Amino acid sequence: MNLIYNPHLSVDCVVFGFDGEQLKVLLIERHLDHPTDQINDKKLPGSMIYEKESLDAAAARVLNDISGMKNVFLSQFHTFGNPQRTSNPRDLMWLELTTHVKVDRIVTVGYMALMRINRKLTHNNTDESANWYDINDIDSLSLAFDHKDIVISGLEHIRHCSTVEPHLLFQLLPRKFTITQLRKLYDVIYGVKSDVRNFQKKIKQMDCLEETEEFEEGVSHRAARLFKFKKKEI
Amino acid sequence: MNLIYNPHLSVDCVVFGFDGEQLKVLLIERHLDHPTDQINDKKLPGSMIYEKESLDAAAARVLNDISGMKNVFLSQFHTFGNPQRTSNPRDLMWLELTTHVKVDRIVTVGYMALMRINRKLTHNNTDESANWYDINDIDSLSLAFDHKDIVISGLEHIRHCSTVEPHLLFQLLPRKFTITQLRKLYDVIYGVKSDVRNFQKKIKQMDCLEETEEFEEGVSHRAARLFKFKKKEI
Repeated sequence: MNLIYNPHLSVDCVVFGFDGEQLKVLLIERHLDHPTDQINDKKLPGSMIYEKESLDAAAARVLNDISGMKNVFLSQFHTFGNPQRTSNPRDLMWLELTTHVKVDRIVTVGYMALMRINRKLTHNNTDESANWYDINDIDSLSLAFDHKDIVISGLEHIRHCSTVEPHLLFQLLPRKFTITQLRKLYDVIYGVKSDVRNFQKKIKQMDCLEETEEFEEGVSHRAARLFKFKKKEI
Repeated sequence: MNLIYNPHLSVDCVVFGFDGEQLKVLLIERHLDHPTDQINDKKLPGSMIYEKESLDAAAARVLNDISGMKNVFLSQFHTFGNPQRTSNPRDLMWLELTTHVKVDRIVTVGYMALMRINRKLTHNNTDESANWYDINDIDSLSLAFDHKDIVISGLEHIRHCSTVEPHLLFQLLPRKFTITQLRKLYDVIYGVKSDVRNFQKKIKQMDCLEETEEFEEGVSHRAARLFKFKKKEI
């Protein structure tokens, strides 16, 4: 007989950052010393939802706990509900020890967030620390639950978002940036190598940049002009 | 104090159809005679999830119950988790009487489905019947929970999908169709009125149609040629 079933519900955030060269994703170090098992791996920032909390509010709380910020850009992209996602007993043990709730199945709502990488990370939970990891290294890392699949799905979402709303990408760059920085960001998101001239032409057509009178500093090559994002009048 | 909370979880399907003139959405008639209250309104096809069932499997089951089909196109688009979505006591009463489960908060995963409108609807639950409604009439109907918002969100999703993967639209048309039928479908989805010549030009560029040797029958005007969808070789 098929029974209505009530799984637990969480949010998990794929937070993207950009260090000028590589696309980064923010992961929480998961450590646990237990008589029968030790856990030393990584997980996405996430949380079970609270009683009167909407899904968006839960994701915003997770990011606020990490960054202290209240207005990080968030976009829900997919909900992961395969019963097998909690099939690893170590994940269930970790959940029980950290949340004090007995869990056998947990459905999680995936959110993508964009954050400047120089943001100070002030994680409220002193047992856990958050670090940026190169997106290309994800495959070789040990991640909790199905968090690797969620990162891959988050990467598809940032590609989709930057096609539909390219201005979102400016949230990953410093306030003033060079065209080269913008091109490198574009290239790491799409996994391509853009032609320099074609990229400049494309950006010009988009009419989203404003020239500043400043140039980059402390570089050995000829200093490039800095641009800023042109806020559209509504 | 904030407590981890375990809401119930369901799937709801926004099923689109096309009758040659209007975009339609499939709704379930919800009737309930109760000593204190009567319910006579409509809701999206949906269900709480079962114990070992993935979200995709739950949505497929819901559509199979309605149509008898096993391979309806389904696409998850958004999860709705506002605690206020179950604030109407009549919705909670209905849930309790039909599922025999006491529910106070329910998070639902929204799926979009595409179905040919001439499909026979064989709803397994004899208490409920399913009917097609004009998308433009949704505003004036009384719908359960936040199902009106879910329909609107589903409409945004079909627009997005038909931009990214235009071949999906052919699932709403008969196997052989006229260019006029295709244009009308496009127009009702996007809420536009396409210029006939421009539309024909655009379709030609997409190279997705195959001319047949057949013409429409039983029409008072000059019979138009029928086309079919050109399946791309992989």
